[in-house]
Amino acid sequence: MANIQDVAKQAGVSIATVSRVLNNTSKVSEKTRYNVEKAIRELNYAPSMLGRNLRNSESRLLLVLIHTFSNPYYTEIINGIEDYSIENNYNILLCETDNNQQREDIFINMVRNKLADGIISMNPTVHVNKLKELSKSHPVVLCSDYYEDTNIPYIAIDNTTAAYRAVKYLINMGNTKIGLINFNEKLLYAKQRRIGFEKALNEYQLPICHEWIQHSDGLTFQDGVETMRRMLRSKDRPTAIFAISDTLAIGAIKELHAHGIKVPEEMAIIGFDNIAFSSMTTPALTTVSQPTYQMGYRSAKMVIDRIQGASVDNVIMDYELIIRESTLG
Amino acid sequence: MANIQDVAKQAGVSIATVSRVLNNTSKVSEKTRYNVEKAIRELNYAPSMLGRNLRNSESRLLLVLIHTFSNPYYTEIINGIEDYSIENNYNILLCETDNNQQREDIFINMVRNKLADGIISMNPTVHVNKLKELSKSHPVVLCSDYYEDTNIPYIAIDNTTAAYRAVKYLINMGNTKIGLINFNEKLLYAKQRRIGFEKALNEYQLPICHEWIQHSDGLTFQDGVETMRRMLRSKDRPTAIFAISDTLAIGAIKELHAHGIKVPEEMAIIGFDNIAFSSMTTPALTTVSQPTYQMGYRSAKMVIDRIQGASVDNVIMDYELIIRESTLG
Repeated sequence: MANIQDVAKQAGVSIATVSRVLNNTSKVSEKTRYNVEKAIRELNYAPSMLGRNLRNSESRLLLVLIHTFSNPYYTEIINGIEDYSIENNYNILLCETDNNQQREDIFINMVRNKLADGIISMNPTVHVNKLKELSKSHPVVLCSDYYEDTNIPYIAIDNTTAAYRAVKYLINMGNTKIGLINFNEKLLYAKQRRIGFEKALNEYQLPICHEWIQHSDGLTFQDGVETMRRMLRSKDRPTAIFAISDTLAIGAIKELHAHGIKVPEEMAIIGFDNIAFSSMTTPALTTVSQPTYQMGYRSAKMVIDRIQGASVDNVIMDYELIIRESTLG
Repeated sequence: MANIQDVAKQAGVSIATVSRVLNNTSKVSEKTRYNVEKAIRELNYAPSMLGRNLRNSESRLLLVLIHTFSNPYYTEIINGIEDYSIENNYNILLCETDNNQQREDIFINMVRNKLADGIISMNPTVHVNKLKELSKSHPVVLCSDYYEDTNIPYIAIDNTTAAYRAVKYLINMGNTKIGLINFNEKLLYAKQRRIGFEKALNEYQLPICHEWIQHSDGLTFQDGVETMRRMLRSKDRPTAIFAISDTLAIGAIKELHAHGIKVPEEMAIIGFDNIAFSSMTTPALTTVSQPTYQMGYRSAKMVIDRIQGASVDNVIMDYELIIRESTLG
């Protein structure tokens, strides 16, 4: 492999001149530039950026931890992270952890080993103690899900209030029998959305029926199908459902279609996330929209600010309820 | 920041002993290991992997170039790439190029600068000449889309035959007026699918109506909505549509619903890709399924084989037609 000395020799110039051509730092004659570039091509020389990074100790690389790419909720968050990063000369490395501890360790060690400068974690299943520990010495930011008892900065929405308002809307539409399709309540957002759901029912003195609170095993469409199937086994049936993700809500609608149950006439459905597909379902899905692009963009700003030594505050973003056909009777 | 000398000093051992503990290379007594690990913890020492990579000149990082994350077609390909990479101690860097030449240059230069060992490109809009040039000296593999006149190895399906068979199926279902929703035919797969479409119509001596061949501006659901809207402006109307992506087909179905046109009774639709949503639409979408996970897995094998100096052959994968409700009368 050719090095800078080889290039200088072949071009008949000094190493400093090769460096000037490479970095465009000062004036070099056309002829000299031509000779250096010719030597670079002939020798297939590639300047080592690794060497440069080693000296100034930064990789300009951010890790983004996600549980799975399969959930389209992450698409716009990633776009936001990427735009801010590229604008600030960082590249991002998307890391799917798949709830696999070994993969998580690889990514956390990349930061310890200076192969990456910081982490944005959107991975609520990551082993929190490792991230906590890493956060003491390295920049870490949590996006969209967070932990209550850590000092890791986060950006998220107020999940309790968002869920409360969504369920209150179902009540105002005349529903008194309301069910919940939730995910694992070890995740803070799932717990908070259940609390918001119950708060609304309690406020209107409506019953909380435990048969109508179902927990899915995952967040795929198929998980929504299966969770609704379990819900339909109860003798009595709710007239409205709050599902804590659009993917679950869409799977639930599919299962209702299969049973000939009309949405929204016989059962209204609200989802959460406003993924691109939510306006394409029949009926189109009412949903809680998080400002996902902005959440991504600002989380990238937060982690880069931390890399540059600034302190950052937690950020709570606004959300909105987008009313479509799945709740209009 | 502590270095290996500091650790050795604090633990009261030689640098070689610290290195042995770090690399698990030879026998170290329990007590020595304990002392070294204690010193590492106390000093918050992180061995520099960058330094190691500089010596053996490999980053163990693969770049995966995608035009946009927004198309769920890529999800399973990425899962396949990731599984093979992780199994072989590589990490992947997902790079969204967004058809932006500057971003593409950043990623291509990362390989030239040894920050990454190879590229899997799923980005049919990437500037082909740059990839061709890079491919002469660095490992590059094309996944799912490729170029006809390059020597870059690729993995893909036979798009012409797949499209031909999908359209032939529509003809066998009794359709004689068949439309095409295509994307930019500068992309080889779009051109090939149009050729397959025309081949089937020609074989059955059916008319090719140019008003029924519409090209969308993008591959989002909304692009499908708008392209179908244009298609419906023609006086006569086809009874079946072949759309070259599921996203376009799903948007098209949405627009047909909005016009009160029944799918499949008044218009049958076939998509392409078998994305997760395609079984969740109403009606569920008939589609051509590519073995996306396997394509990703094998493309990662191809690029890693090239990194290790092996030569690789192009791979053509099988596909299948998945018949659902959108084509059953």
